[in-house]
Amino acid sequence: MYSLAVSGHMMIAHSFVGEIFGPAQQLHGATYAVEIEMRRVELDGNGLVCDIGLAKALLDEVLGAFDYRNLDDVAAFRGRNTTTEFLAGEIFRRLKTRIATGALGPETAGALASLRVQLRESPIAWAAFEDRLA
Amino acid sequence: MYSLAVSGHMMIAHSFVGEIFGPAQQLHGATYAVEIEMRRVELDGNGLVCDIGLAKALLDEVLGAFDYRNLDDVAAFRGRNTTTEFLAGEIFRRLKTRIATGALGPETAGALASLRVQLRESPIAWAAFEDRLA
Amino acid sequence: MYSLAVSGHMMIAHSFVGEIFGPAQQLHGATYAVEIEMRRVELDGNGLVCDIGLAKALLDEVLGAFDYRNLDDVAAFRGRNTTTEFLAGEIFRRLKTRIATGALGPETAGALASLRVQLRESPIAWAAFEDRLA
Amino acid sequence: MYSLAVSGHMMIAHSFVGEIFGPAQQLHGATYAVEIEMRRVELDGNGLVCDIGLAKALLDEVLGAFDYRNLDDVAAFRGRNTTTEFLAGEIFRRLKTRIATGALGPETAGALASLRVQLRESPIAWAAFEDRLA
Amino acid sequence: MYSLAVSGHMMIAHSFVGEIFGPAQQLHGATYAVEIEMRRVELDGNGLVCDIGLAKALLDEVLGAFDYRNLDDVAAFRGRNTTTEFLAGEIFRRLKTRIATGALGPETAGALASLRVQLRESPIAWAAFEDRLA
Amino acid sequence: MYSLAVSGHMMIAHSFVGEIFGPAQQLHGATYAVEIEMRRVELDGNGLVCDIGLAKALLDEVLGAFDYRNLDDVAAFRGRNTTTEFLAGEIFRRLKTRIATGALGPETAGALASLRVQLRESPIAWAAFEDRLA
Repeated sequence: MYSLAVSGHMMIAHSFVGEIFGPAQQLHGATYAVEIEMRRVELDGNGLVCDIGLAKALLDEVLGAFDYRNLDDVAAFRGRNTTTEFLAGEIFRRLKTRIATGALGPETAGALASLRVQLRESPIAWAAFEDRLA
Repeated sequence: MYSLAVSGHMMIAHSFVGEIFGPAQQLHGATYAVEIEMRRVELDGNGLVCDIGLAKALLDEVLGAFDYRNLDDVAAFRGRNTTTEFLAGEIFRRLKTRIATGALGPETAGALASLRVQLRESPIAWAAFEDRLA
Repeated sequence: MYSLAVSGHMMIAHSFVGEIFGPAQQLHGATYAVEIEMRRVELDGNGLVCDIGLAKALLDEVLGAFDYRNLDDVAAFRGRNTTTEFLAGEIFRRLKTRIATGALGPETAGALASLRVQLRESPIAWAAFEDRLA
Repeated sequence: MYSLAVSGHMMIAHSFVGEIFGPAQQLHGATYAVEIEMRRVELDGNGLVCDIGLAKALLDEVLGAFDYRNLDDVAAFRGRNTTTEFLAGEIFRRLKTRIATGALGPETAGALASLRVQLRESPIAWAAFEDRLA
Repeated sequence: MYSLAVSGHMMIAHSFVGEIFGPAQQLHGATYAVEIEMRRVELDGNGLVCDIGLAKALLDEVLGAFDYRNLDDVAAFRGRNTTTEFLAGEIFRRLKTRIATGALGPETAGALASLRVQLRESPIAWAAFEDRLA
Repeated sequence: MYSLAVSGHMMIAHSFVGEIFGPAQQLHGATYAVEIEMRRVELDGNGLVCDIGLAKALLDEVLGAFDYRNLDDVAAFRGRNTTTEFLAGEIFRRLKTRIATGALGPETAGALASLRVQLRESPIAWAAFEDRLA
């Protein structure tokens, strides 16, 4: 299995609902260093998992919907705790939809076997979500 | 599959038995930067893999049994080479036992699918152990 | 010149005033990985720049005043842009005051020559403030 | 499953053929930080995945065939784009052959379950190849 | 003294002249992770060392002249060994010229005290150049 | 001012004397990731701060005296606490002596302005020593 990974980051505010979150119930924020890994069994005719330029542009497009935002104000997240693991899943779902509609090129849409999205929230913690694409 | 990872470290002394270890047969030491990754299929009702505060506290508790120790003097390791890979397995087993008895909360005990323990021993080497929990 | 550095982190929300900030005028947030470096000419009688346990506790105490907060609501910052470089200076000033009153021990207060505070805000940017203490 | 990983690096020049590569069609270069991870189910009698000294020496031997070279001049790569993902696969194949012929010791040859080769090409991108060995 | 640093990278080919360079006399290449640090005594009216967006754009502009190039073909470097330390100095000189002509804004041009340029060439080596600007 | 830095590591055991050290009075150990930075005003005729191969070999030679050792048994350290900051100074002094006797070449001996030695002991702490050479 081959992998290609690219990374970016976003800086957001949010707060959590539930006593389990302790001080994180207060409005606070995070820099998320985000890495996405695309996997496929065989390389394409150019020797690539996918066009790295398209992958970086797609990641930045998806992160751009959250960057410099207060996630408590994002309609799609109403009633949800935007935990790091939830955001990893949400970014996965948005990438999956865009890949299916050709954001990484028509050949790549059907060729990627799986995708992993990792968000580092601090020097001591990160979360991730991964699943099959095909 | 969702993942949540937290990290800590410990500073220990030890020596190895066997010609294969060369100069590492002498009493020396290591800083182990330890990262544990917990995985589950669905997030809990709070949008979490588990309570990150409990996870960090559990990791520090388990590492606390080794930190600032000479592992050659630890009774549980008598007759064993405390290699980095062995220690990854040992920390896994201790975490697994504590998770099963509720250290990450009663709901989490049954919900975690797998666990991975990684120990970085130097800028150029690390070892890990991972297995299913359920 | 000898140095000793310890690190920690904090996760905050804030917004900036001024067109130069572009989208960062919106409420957003950051994880700041904070490193403080203490310098002195000669080591103390124990062979130390200072007690590393006290240094880590002092850093965590100072960061604790900001961690999980919206800095827009912090009275001391009313009317100020809490940029990364400003926060580096602010943390320096708070550490300096606490060091002068013995937070790192009475001997250390007079022995430290200078202090540097660095805040990494993202994988591609950091800011710092440094000055003499004596 | 246990893992042991060691790392090294190589500095190479190359160019790519195909419009998809844009400016990377020009002769340019890269530092590849290379990490290899060996996995096995049970540790050997010494408590090891394999001899870490042999693993580091083998990695350096394989990278030595490329280090300080222009890959466009390497006969084995004639007509191939030496992308990061392709190189991960190529290094995997060379390591697999050498492991099979005893480069990590006779016992290890049959005991390793799988191998992963990762090449970091820049602060924002890496590629990898992994497969079973047994 | 306040500092603000931003980073980027470039991927180049080159070769060196002189027996001291050993195998690096051959055409090879490098990924340079480049970090620039700008220092000033007092923050500006916005609480900034300089506009971080302009700083990142300026760095990318200067690196863009080298990225995906064979430095042996760059006219400005004819007869020079483009060592990491030389390139740090060259990038410094280009940044200094652009800063003096307002690339970081008219106020910043006169306010920056010094500049440091660091190029990491591999996991085990980096070079830098720093000097006063005012 | 130009800088060139190379890095290595060593894995040692030791213990400290004095109540201030708490649990570190017990025999424990550390991996020290060691970076040395050499500075000079002008590059040599080859465009170098110094021969990077000689610098790496010199660092490994100096660290080799400590690697895989229990520092409590090293005669030169009898009666001293081998703290991270002390070791930074000790490595500085050994490098300085070797540089003066030509370990980095005869020209470099007189040309280096200063030297900095940094030891990272854990993900959250490091110490350093720096001084002039000329």
